[in-house]
Amino acid sequence: MEIKEEVENKQIILKGYIDRAPLESDMELNVGNKIKLKISKGSNSVLIKNLYLSCDPYMRGRMREFYGSYIPPFVPGKPIEGFGVSRVIDSDDPNFQSGDIVSGMTGWEEYSLIEDTKKLRKIQQDDIPLSYHIGLLGMPGFTAYAGFHEVCSPKEGDRVFVSAASGAVGQIVGQLAKLHGCYVVGSAGTKEKVNLLKTKLGFDDAFNYKEEQHLDATLKKYFPEGIDIYFENVGGAMLDAVLLNMRVHGRIAVCGMVSQHSYRGEDGIHNLFTLISRRIRMQGFIQSDYLHLFPKFVEHVGAYYKQGKIVYIEDMSVGLESAPSALAGLFTGKNVGKQVVCVSRN
Amino acid sequence: MEIKEEVENKQIILKGYIDRAPLESDMELNVGNKIKLKISKGSNSVLIKNLYLSCDPYMRGRMREFYGSYIPPFVPGKPIEGFGVSRVIDSDDPNFQSGDIVSGMTGWEEYSLIEDTKKLRKIQQDDIPLSYHIGLLGMPGFTAYAGFHEVCSPKEGDRVFVSAASGAVGQIVGQLAKLHGCYVVGSAGTKEKVNLLKTKLGFDDAFNYKEEQHLDATLKKYFPEGIDIYFENVGGAMLDAVLLNMRVHGRIAVCGMVSQHSYRGEDGIHNLFTLISRRIRMQGFIQSDYLHLFPKFVEHVGAYYKQGKIVYIEDMSVGLESAPSALAGLFTGKNVGKQVVCVSRN
Repeated sequence: MEIKEEVENKQIILKGYIDRAPLESDMELNVGNKIKLKISKGSNSVLIKNLYLSCDPYMRGRMREFYGSYIPPFVPGKPIEGFGVSRVIDSDDPNFQSGDIVSGMTGWEEYSLIEDTKKLRKIQQDDIPLSYHIGLLGMPGFTAYAGFHEVCSPKEGDRVFVSAASGAVGQIVGQLAKLHGCYVVGSAGTKEKVNLLKTKLGFDDAFNYKEEQHLDATLKKYFPEGIDIYFENVGGAMLDAVLLNMRVHGRIAVCGMVSQHSYRGEDGIHNLFTLISRRIRMQGFIQSDYLHLFPKFVEHVGAYYKQGKIVYIEDMSVGLESAPSALAGLFTGKNVGKQVVCVSRN
Repeated sequence: MEIKEEVENKQIILKGYIDRAPLESDMELNVGNKIKLKISKGSNSVLIKNLYLSCDPYMRGRMREFYGSYIPPFVPGKPIEGFGVSRVIDSDDPNFQSGDIVSGMTGWEEYSLIEDTKKLRKIQQDDIPLSYHIGLLGMPGFTAYAGFHEVCSPKEGDRVFVSAASGAVGQIVGQLAKLHGCYVVGSAGTKEKVNLLKTKLGFDDAFNYKEEQHLDATLKKYFPEGIDIYFENVGGAMLDAVLLNMRVHGRIAVCGMVSQHSYRGEDGIHNLFTLISRRIRMQGFIQSDYLHLFPKFVEHVGAYYKQGKIVYIEDMSVGLESAPSALAGLFTGKNVGKQVVCVSRN
């Protein structure tokens, strides 16, 4: 007999396209939606209950009406999409069973129907917090891992600079670089974050870029012999200052928010001439190009975590209704560490 | 018996440091200098008569008082330095004999005393014009060869765009790319140069960037499916437009004049965000990092020339006194092809 009862399924929807950093008011809670907690036979779909949702800077790019990127925009009136950790409620795909914990792209809603189940990954529950599967062991962690090891060509002793260093990606880049025998300095936007970098996250040094008048001089102070590797998360004036401080044959891995900051109308990047004199390689990357390395990443970084060699700082907001504020906060630096939203603990 | 007679040794000297494109008036002919056409025993030096001098865009960088580059500035009041083809007059180095033809870094003067003879390369005379050893088979040719093959990672069928395409480097990049099975479009600044690209140099297509109002639209017309490889010689607005037209996993080899155009105060580069979405690798390089490949380069490109598979367009000005005007002309696009100065034919 078919289950006919429907339950309420709260959603966070995008109200309309924007072309600036998102505000809380660009999204709204939709309480009218209902969903049947049963999958139709033959659909090959999976019905999941969303537990943790990820707030990531790249999501800003999906809030504007632009189709030339590697990922299409959100649909106004429909739920925001993002990475999540979820529990399987019902499944018509033999690879998933009710009760399984999965991670993958999901909707900002209480329950989601996933038709393309190939994009779900089953999580083996152990002593790693479930929410870490959208952070340390999810897309941000993998971005750090692939970017650092596959793009930065690190060597022991390299001098590494990480911007947005206490963020979801930066904190892992810095710790991976330390484990690789590098000298690591990070920048962040508050005193609290700078302290975390130096105490909890093991960076050799760190500074608050908002307190620095001359980024070029600041970098020369922290890197008197120059920078071998820059893990670029912010673009703009910081990138320009770093270009003046790179060492010969330096590498710049370009990722994250530079894509958001470099629109026309703002001041551009002026110091690319050092690419030549210092023979710098500047390379954009997207973690999804390296997915063949994902199992190795989970094994390595999972082991580092269990051995206490890597820590991870999360900023968790509670309740689906807190998600718009949490996402908007990324762009003002409100979050301390990886921003996640807890929709439900089980 | 020691030869005591001295001969006049005309020189072109830099009058003082500048921070803009050089003008003819920034240099002057110095007629007061005299030189003895005999080497002292024990000096290990070589005395050469300069035949052909090379005018290259990088020389602008040596005209400003800046010590942070890979090469020190010129010394005001002393002769300009540059690549040249010369004949050995006298030698205290057993590797060189009077009458040998050599190429290497020399002075802008009739005769030069070379103390660091390791930087001279002996030229085997054959049916290749001597002046080509500072062009097709010299630094510009090697820049094209190393940049294209070692930095651009070319594949057959790649869509290649070359700016300053009729210049000393660009014309060889385009021809090497054609020999590699690529589709090649070049840009230049006059109708005459565009015609040369399409007729004499074998480019698939070419355009005059000065006649184009919207470089982005122009590039979309010539590369409807986007650009795999951009050999970057000019920087500025062209680079910004190219960034919008790169294909996923495209490569940008950065070389030459971008170093001159990217000073503070001018408009910067705005479109680096595509580095991420298209996973572009942008890499600065200097030919001298690849000198281990020089013999292979001379063999390959020399053979291409002899087989008629590569041509080379030179713009030769005659007389040492024409050198300042020839160098200044590079920065206004006066030269058609590789700019050289003939000081003496033998």
